[in-house]
Amino acid sequence: MKRIAVITAGGDAPGMNTAIRSVVRFGVNSKIEVFGVFRGWSGLINEELKQFDHRSVSGIINQGGTILKTARCPEFQTQEGMERAYATIKKYSLDGLVVIGGNGSFAASHAFGNKYNVPCIGIPASIDNDINGIDATIGSDTAVNTALNAIDNIRDTATSMERIFVVEVMGRDCGYIALAVALGGGCEDVIIPERKFDLSLMCHDIVDGNLRGKASWIVVVAEGAAHAEDIAKQITDMTSLETRAITLGHIQRGGRPTAFSRELALRLGKEAVDCLLRGERDLAVGLCCGKINTVDFATAIKKKELPVELWYNLIKTLT
Amino acid sequence: MKRIAVITAGGDAPGMNTAIRSVVRFGVNSKIEVFGVFRGWSGLINEELKQFDHRSVSGIINQGGTILKTARCPEFQTQEGMERAYATIKKYSLDGLVVIGGNGSFAASHAFGNKYNVPCIGIPASIDNDINGIDATIGSDTAVNTALNAIDNIRDTATSMERIFVVEVMGRDCGYIALAVALGGGCEDVIIPERKFDLSLMCHDIVDGNLRGKASWIVVVAEGAAHAEDIAKQITDMTSLETRAITLGHIQRGGRPTAFSRELALRLGKEAVDCLLRGERDLAVGLCCGKINTVDFATAIKKKELPVELWYNLIKTLT
Amino acid sequence: MKRIAVITAGGDAPGMNTAIRSVVRFGVNSKIEVFGVFRGWSGLINEELKQFDHRSVSGIINQGGTILKTARCPEFQTQEGMERAYATIKKYSLDGLVVIGGNGSFAASHAFGNKYNVPCIGIPASIDNDINGIDATIGSDTAVNTALNAIDNIRDTATSMERIFVVEVMGRDCGYIALAVALGGGCEDVIIPERKFDLSLMCHDIVDGNLRGKASWIVVVAEGAAHAEDIAKQITDMTSLETRAITLGHIQRGGRPTAFSRELALRLGKEAVDCLLRGERDLAVGLCCGKINTVDFATAIKKKELPVELWYNLIKTLT
Amino acid sequence: MKRIAVITAGGDAPGMNTAIRSVVRFGVNSKIEVFGVFRGWSGLINEELKQFDHRSVSGIINQGGTILKTARCPEFQTQEGMERAYATIKKYSLDGLVVIGGNGSFAASHAFGNKYNVPCIGIPASIDNDINGIDATIGSDTAVNTALNAIDNIRDTATSMERIFVVEVMGRDCGYIALAVALGGGCEDVIIPERKFDLSLMCHDIVDGNLRGKASWIVVVAEGAAHAEDIAKQITDMTSLETRAITLGHIQRGGRPTAFSRELALRLGKEAVDCLLRGERDLAVGLCCGKINTVDFATAIKKKELPVELWYNLIKTLT
Repeated sequence: MKRIAVITAGGDAPGMNTAIRSVVRFGVNSKIEVFGVFRGWSGLINEELKQFDHRSVSGIINQGGTILKTARCPEFQTQEGMERAYATIKKYSLDGLVVIGGNGSFAASHAFGNKYNVPCIGIPASIDNDINGIDATIGSDTAVNTALNAIDNIRDTATSMERIFVVEVMGRDCGYIALAVALGGGCEDVIIPERKFDLSLMCHDIVDGNLRGKASWIVVVAEGAAHAEDIAKQITDMTSLETRAITLGHIQRGGRPTAFSRELALRLGKEAVDCLLRGERDLAVGLCCGKINTVDFATAIKKKELPVELWYNLIKTLT
Repeated sequence: MKRIAVITAGGDAPGMNTAIRSVVRFGVNSKIEVFGVFRGWSGLINEELKQFDHRSVSGIINQGGTILKTARCPEFQTQEGMERAYATIKKYSLDGLVVIGGNGSFAASHAFGNKYNVPCIGIPASIDNDINGIDATIGSDTAVNTALNAIDNIRDTATSMERIFVVEVMGRDCGYIALAVALGGGCEDVIIPERKFDLSLMCHDIVDGNLRGKASWIVVVAEGAAHAEDIAKQITDMTSLETRAITLGHIQRGGRPTAFSRELALRLGKEAVDCLLRGERDLAVGLCCGKINTVDFATAIKKKELPVELWYNLIKTLT
Repeated sequence: MKRIAVITAGGDAPGMNTAIRSVVRFGVNSKIEVFGVFRGWSGLINEELKQFDHRSVSGIINQGGTILKTARCPEFQTQEGMERAYATIKKYSLDGLVVIGGNGSFAASHAFGNKYNVPCIGIPASIDNDINGIDATIGSDTAVNTALNAIDNIRDTATSMERIFVVEVMGRDCGYIALAVALGGGCEDVIIPERKFDLSLMCHDIVDGNLRGKASWIVVVAEGAAHAEDIAKQITDMTSLETRAITLGHIQRGGRPTAFSRELALRLGKEAVDCLLRGERDLAVGLCCGKINTVDFATAIKKKELPVELWYNLIKTLT
Repeated sequence: MKRIAVITAGGDAPGMNTAIRSVVRFGVNSKIEVFGVFRGWSGLINEELKQFDHRSVSGIINQGGTILKTARCPEFQTQEGMERAYATIKKYSLDGLVVIGGNGSFAASHAFGNKYNVPCIGIPASIDNDINGIDATIGSDTAVNTALNAIDNIRDTATSMERIFVVEVMGRDCGYIALAVALGGGCEDVIIPERKFDLSLMCHDIVDGNLRGKASWIVVVAEGAAHAEDIAKQITDMTSLETRAITLGHIQRGGRPTAFSRELALRLGKEAVDCLLRGERDLAVGLCCGKINTVDFATAIKKKELPVELWYNLIKTLT
């Protein structure tokens, strides 16, 4: 293992830069040459990469986004795309790849690494926290805090104007952000992809609460479960109460990584380099039950199960 | 002037609580009895008010929203509504009103105060900064900072993924927030109600920039000018480039007031009480060219003119 | 178990209010009467307590500090103090106590609970993260983020003015905050109580780095290891380079709890009530290897061992 | 005017980078060559400068500190230092200087510009807000907000533990930050260089308040008036009440500039370039009574008078 490359792929997440810094510095410190690949897989296909040294990653420990940039790359799912990527790997004599990304990036690494015999190690970075077998992805803590601050702000208006708000947070297949935000924000209800939801029951609760003097409600919706606008309209139709919809959107992706997102990124960056040095491959590093560990890609890309009912009951009992 | 009441009306704004604190404490300190009216004008109509003392406003100096709550009140625009409000004023022997709110609240105060001979003093609090004749409303600095932080976050993704974002900020008739955010956020363009906008010209710039390697754009849109979704769709149609729409929404209304919003609220609260004590009426207090001053309600509710071209040129030259 | 009381004791930590909310609402929901005791143990001694209901804890989920207030109470370490506290427990027919606090509070609970046969359950809340056997205390994530933001700010000046800064963070016997902040802040060195430190070696590194063009340094010091002023003076003496000392102090204790501090507080509040209902006693609830669990008070109050060398090596390799 | 240079001198302030961006982009846009000088005046002396273009200032609009770095430079106060600086100006054919800094930097510009006939325009950037004749310096709004957030945090502990805190903020000759923070933070008292202070009177108030049940106090101290440690010790001596001292220090210098600091920096950067283009010299640009204007250096460096009694009375009446 003399020369490796680091890639960020998929949607950006806060802490990706922190992870890049860690991979580069631990790599260089271990006498490995480290290349940065730009624009995700397409950078490998199009030979957009350059050697990084200790200084290349100065000043990025607390910067959101990724200096390597990232992009979706449908071409990498074709035979031709993978061939070209592999040609770059050969040309630059790369002995291994560190892939910082989420589910999709791990699936691609799994396929590509096995097909072309390229050692790939994944570092889970995704705001969705949807990687199976690990406690937390880099960036999810930051995204939850950003969304929670937004909810705190919305609560001010909800209370002052005695209104119902439906707030849509990110999470296509995974209700993690929605659950965490609904819990921490003291929200009255939450709608997620993993759980059947009875809107008429909630509307009944809202009307009931309204009669008892509870005038403000915040309902959190994961984007993968429903759209805030639709839910708000249905609530208005069923209750005749004024309801506002808010979609937090991309503010959840950016911003300075929190302490936890940074710590995780720094520790996993080291672990990824160590894995390559030990000859490991086809797996992701991650925090498992509070400890740094590894998970096979095949396991990591399976659907993650959250203790949905437990969280939901917590939320409902606390409000 | 022995007994006054304080009301928050219209949409909530960060710093309303700070202003309430100031009115109550300066009132009490001037040996006046101060009543807090709940839920805006409807609290006057429905006799929802109670006497406040020094302690009633403890711990709210940095809290968003309004402990008096606020509400829209169409009833106050009827003869009957005003009669009932006036009846409450008589019943409680209120000698004057301090109305914390925006344009609509000032127009209502102007009409009501003159019709029923009730001294009303307005304190401008609105995130839109749309009160004529004054430099800044309470809450607008906070809202601009909140929106700017959101833009900073979005910039991380725009740069990392090399994408176009259209971000809709608040401002129904007034482009102030949009201009301030576009300027401070280094945004590439801004669409506001006060200025004709040539979308095809902007799309031409985008395509042009794209060819030269400028891959990310942020366009800020004031809600009164257009909807982010529509603009994003049009950009995609014209440029074939992927474009995302984000509507920041109510996160701009809440949160802790900034230092400036607090200072303004505290100084204007004192000035409002002083105005009533001096026998003034039918006017708003405000910062005018950097100094505390007053503006007739009749002037304050006129359309505020912003130096739109000057700001727009600044924004375009800086990006 | 029909009636319990909840106390906050020791130094305040962000998330204590969130935990109070959880204990009260889960208690009430389980048909238990819940009393809030004011000012820590002295409230038990002086009969300062009152019954809380669902509404008593509204609006505090995101507030720093503790609405129950807290105080040091040397009197509770005397026989007489404990007798009086026990008298209150009898008078109010309290069947159990939930004690939200740190090391000292758990030691006191352990002694008192066993001596007077009062079931006590501890909820770990302390910015120091120094409770043995558990992953994280309520408030430590918030404190680390607050300190890290401060370090980010200081980095701006350190880089711009090319200066050395020594930053003292909280942590009397425990270097946790210092290690986490030094790691996440990309700091050049860290001095903690758990590890011998060679100042002349660091000064040698500083001078060496200076010759190679590395002009700015941030050294983090845990308050229990040394004082920033002293270290700064010694660095100046040894290197002749201008060095500034900063002591972050109590800003680390306050502020809105982060998402993680809130989630932990809410889950542990429920668990503490459940423990009392199940007849458990003399133990703390806590996150252990990522899962909610319990730890005997006797274990919890022992000295917590951190993986100091592992962290220190991470920090040094990354800078 | 074909070629100018921009310098940041004195202590760094948030928004300096924003101002650099503005000077460079407006300069380049006006067909002027713009050089960036590194490390303040010493960069001019030692010929550390390079040409900047539009791209040189990308991505710094929201970054604290200064990419030009800054340094104190006693050598520039000597004849020889000034000669060498002037030699650089001749060598590079610089037609004018934009100096971003505070009082000291303006005094130096005034002396140097007049002696060597070099047109110098100052842009006021200093957290202290101590430039005479203008409303606000770049960075002061940011510093006040940073200090205010710290005070908000400290208030949580002050209230929860019912303690007295003395908080020292920056401001060597100027009590601006202290006054703004004490007002916005609802602090009980404030000690500044511009105003005689009767500590025994304050201690009397503290004891008095304590008897009436007011248990927590925050006293803000400007560094130029006294040290927090000394005041805390005196309060303890006089009142026998436990008192804590905190010195906020350099956290007030760094961090992202607020919206207002950014807007000011961007507008003043343009104005400074315009002044040079119009042939003006020996003056600072600034916000005067809410409008962009200019102030002679000779006036700007005089002692700024604050409406101290007015602010002090506001603070004392509001608590």
